[in-house]
Amino acid sequence: MTTVLCVLYDDPVDGYPPAYPRDGIPRIERYFDGQTTPTPERIDFTPGELLGCVSGELGLRGFLEEQGHRLIVTADKDGPDSVFERELPGADVVISQPFWPAYLTAERIAAAPNLKLAITAGIGSDHVNLQAAMDRGMTVAEVTYCNSISVAEHVVMAILALVRNYIPSYKVVIEGGWNIADCAARSYDLEGMQVGTVGAGRIGSAVLRRLHPFELGLHYTDRYRLPEETERRLGLTYHPDAGSLVQVCDVVTINAPLHPETEHMFDEKLIATMKRGAYLVNTARGKICDEHAVARALESGQLAGYAGDVWFPQPAPRDHPWRSMPHHGMTPHISGTSLSAQARYAAGTREILECWLEDRPIREEYLIVQGGALAGAGAHSYSAGDATGGSGAAARFRAG
Amino acid sequence: MTTVLCVLYDDPVDGYPPAYPRDGIPRIERYFDGQTTPTPERIDFTPGELLGCVSGELGLRGFLEEQGHRLIVTADKDGPDSVFERELPGADVVISQPFWPAYLTAERIAAAPNLKLAITAGIGSDHVNLQAAMDRGMTVAEVTYCNSISVAEHVVMAILALVRNYIPSYKVVIEGGWNIADCAARSYDLEGMQVGTVGAGRIGSAVLRRLHPFELGLHYTDRYRLPEETERRLGLTYHPDAGSLVQVCDVVTINAPLHPETEHMFDEKLIATMKRGAYLVNTARGKICDEHAVARALESGQLAGYAGDVWFPQPAPRDHPWRSMPHHGMTPHISGTSLSAQARYAAGTREILECWLEDRPIREEYLIVQGGALAGAGAHSYSAGDATGGSGAAARFRAG
Repeated sequence: MTTVLCVLYDDPVDGYPPAYPRDGIPRIERYFDGQTTPTPERIDFTPGELLGCVSGELGLRGFLEEQGHRLIVTADKDGPDSVFERELPGADVVISQPFWPAYLTAERIAAAPNLKLAITAGIGSDHVNLQAAMDRGMTVAEVTYCNSISVAEHVVMAILALVRNYIPSYKVVIEGGWNIADCAARSYDLEGMQVGTVGAGRIGSAVLRRLHPFELGLHYTDRYRLPEETERRLGLTYHPDAGSLVQVCDVVTINAPLHPETEHMFDEKLIATMKRGAYLVNTARGKICDEHAVARALESGQLAGYAGDVWFPQPAPRDHPWRSMPHHGMTPHISGTSLSAQARYAAGTREILECWLEDRPIREEYLIVQGGALAGAGAHSYSAGDATGGSGAAARFRAG
Repeated sequence: MTTVLCVLYDDPVDGYPPAYPRDGIPRIERYFDGQTTPTPERIDFTPGELLGCVSGELGLRGFLEEQGHRLIVTADKDGPDSVFERELPGADVVISQPFWPAYLTAERIAAAPNLKLAITAGIGSDHVNLQAAMDRGMTVAEVTYCNSISVAEHVVMAILALVRNYIPSYKVVIEGGWNIADCAARSYDLEGMQVGTVGAGRIGSAVLRRLHPFELGLHYTDRYRLPEETERRLGLTYHPDAGSLVQVCDVVTINAPLHPETEHMFDEKLIATMKRGAYLVNTARGKICDEHAVARALESGQLAGYAGDVWFPQPAPRDHPWRSMPHHGMTPHISGTSLSAQARYAAGTREILECWLEDRPIREEYLIVQGGALAGAGAHSYSAGDATGGSGAAARFRAG
C-alpha cells in the first residue's frame, strides 16, 4: 500500500462545488512544441471542474483507493501540529502545488523516511529542497507545460493592465466618478515600447509570441539562446544578462525559475538601473525580487507599476508590503490554476502516479530530480543547491 | 476671426499638470496601413503631456491666438446655462471628444448659425447629429486611426481580465485574503476559445491580429469582407451577421461605430442566443448594447462577464446599472485617451485646423461629412440618419 499525502488549497468560502460560470473548457491536445497534453489511462473528473482545492482532490481518490492505496488530502500545511507534519512520516508520495506550497525542507525530508516521490501539481519545484531530495535519492516530478500558457496569458494581461492603468480606472467606476484626467494621467499605449523577458523558456517565449503583433520592441535574456529563426521572426534582441536588458526596457517580465542564481536578482541595485517609470511583472517566484526594494521603487516612482501573482511566503501574510504598495496589480498565486490549467495538472499528476505505481518510466520532460541528480526538465531549468542557500553552480541569469 | 469652442474633460482632481510617471512616449510615425500619424506644421506641446483636459487645451491656444483667432475651452457642456450652450451661437468651430462629448443635436446646430466645422478630437462622431450637419452643409472631421490601437489594446486587456477573473482576484489581495479557490472558480484560459468581433475595421482587425498568437478560433462579421489573404493568415471565420457569430463564440467584442443599424443591436433577444457564460466586451459605443439586457444577463449567468469603457450618456450617472452589475470590468471612457493617444489626437486636431484655416483640403480619411453628404471615412463607417432616430439606410451589421 502506498500512502499519498496531498496538500491542496482550501475549498471556496461558500462551499464545494462552486457554481461554474461556463459549461466546459476547450479541448487542447498538444502544446506549442508538439508535446501532447497529459495522457493518463483514464480520468475520473470532468475538465472544467475545480480540482485544485481540498474537495477537488485532483480527482485522484477513486483511482488510488480502488488499487488499495491511501490518499490523505489537506490544506493544513504549516507548523508542527499541521496535518501535513503529522502525516509526513508515513507518506510515500507527497503532492503539492506552487499556489499553496507544502515546503519540503531538508528537515521535513529527514522526518519522512518512506518518502520516495514528490509531485508538483503544476510547475516549479522550488518548494522542495532539491539538494536534500537528490541526497535522499528521491524522484521529484512536475507537470511540465501544463499551465505555461495560463501564466503567459496572465503576463500579457498584467502588462496591459499596468501600462494602461486599468485597475485604478475601474475603481473610478465603482466609486461613482468620471474623472477621466486622473485615469489618463497614468495611462499609456503599449505600442512602441520596449518589452523584455528574463527567461525565454516555455512561458517567456509564449509571452514573446503573444506580444509580437503589438508592434513593440522585444528583448530577452536566457542561459539558452533561442534559434536564430525565432529571433528573426519575432524581432528579438538578445541580451547576455538581465543588467543589459533592463536598461533599455520599458516593461520587464520575469519568467525564470527560482534557484540560487535568480534569488533576489531584482534588488535595489538592479532596479536602480531600470528606466524611470518602468513596469515590472513577475509571475515566476516572489523571491526573485527583493520585496522591500520593489515597494520602495513604487513609492519613489522609479517603477511605475508592479504586477504578478507570486509571493514569499505563500499564503502571503496580511501585512505583506506588496498588498498595500502603490500602483500594483497583484493577485494571489492563481495564474497557473485557472480551471483550464487544473484539468491538465490533475491529468498530469495522475499520469505520473500511474507510471510510478506501475513501475513505468515517467515522461522525461516531467522529471526534475531522479537517481540523485537533476534530470529532464530539472537539468534544463534548475541549478544544484537550495533556493535559500546559495550555490556556486553556473548562473543561468546574471544580474549584469 | 474664427471662434473655436472646445469642450474637454475636467482637469485632474489634484490640479494640472499631473506628476507624469514616465519621461515620454514612443515615437510612432505610421499606422499599420501605412498612413502617417498626424502631420501638422508644428506642435506646441511635448508628446506624453495631458492634453485632453481643460488646462491641456489640446495644445492649441498659442497657435490660434497668434493668428488672431479666439479659443474658448470648457468642460461645462450640458444644460441651458452651460458655457457650451452660451458660447455656441458665436462659434465657427466646435471641438469635442467622445470621452466627454458635447452632443451636437439638431437643436444645438440650429442655434449655432456660424457653425461650419465640428472636429472630433478622437474617433467617432455619433455625438453629432450627422443628418443635421449634412443638411446645414457643415464639415465633420475626426482624427481617424489616432487611437484605434489604444482601443484595440484595451479590448485584448479586457478580454483577458474577464476570462482570467483578474479584478476579483486583485480584490482578494487588497482585502488581505488568499482564497485561491474563489479566484480560480471563475478563471479560465483564453487558449482554445472562440473569439469574434462585430466589426473588423481599424480597431477590430487590430484586435484580431493581436489575438492570433493566443491559439484560439477567430471570427468576424463586417459589411466589408477582409482580403482572403488576411482571413487565411489569421485563420478567420467570416459570418454574414452578428447572429451567426455570437452563437459560436465564447468571447464577443464590439468594434463597430454607432449608427441607426447598430443601436441596441445587443438586446435581450441577441444576448439570449449567445453561449451560456460568454463574455462581451464593448469599447465601441454604449448604445450598441441595451443596458438593462446586459445587466440582467450578468445577473442570470447568461453572460459571465462584460467589460468596456463606453456608456450612455457620458458621463455616466452615479446610479447607472453598469456601475453595480456583477462580473463587470468597466472603466470610464478612457481607452482612446491614453497619453500616447492624446499626442496623436491633439496633433491631428491641429492638422485639421491648419488645413481649414488655410483653406487647404482636409485629409480624405479624416472626413465624416462634407458638402452635404457622408464623405471619406464617414461613407465607409456610418449610415445616414441619427443614431437615436433610426434610418432606412443599408445595414452594415444585421442582428441575424
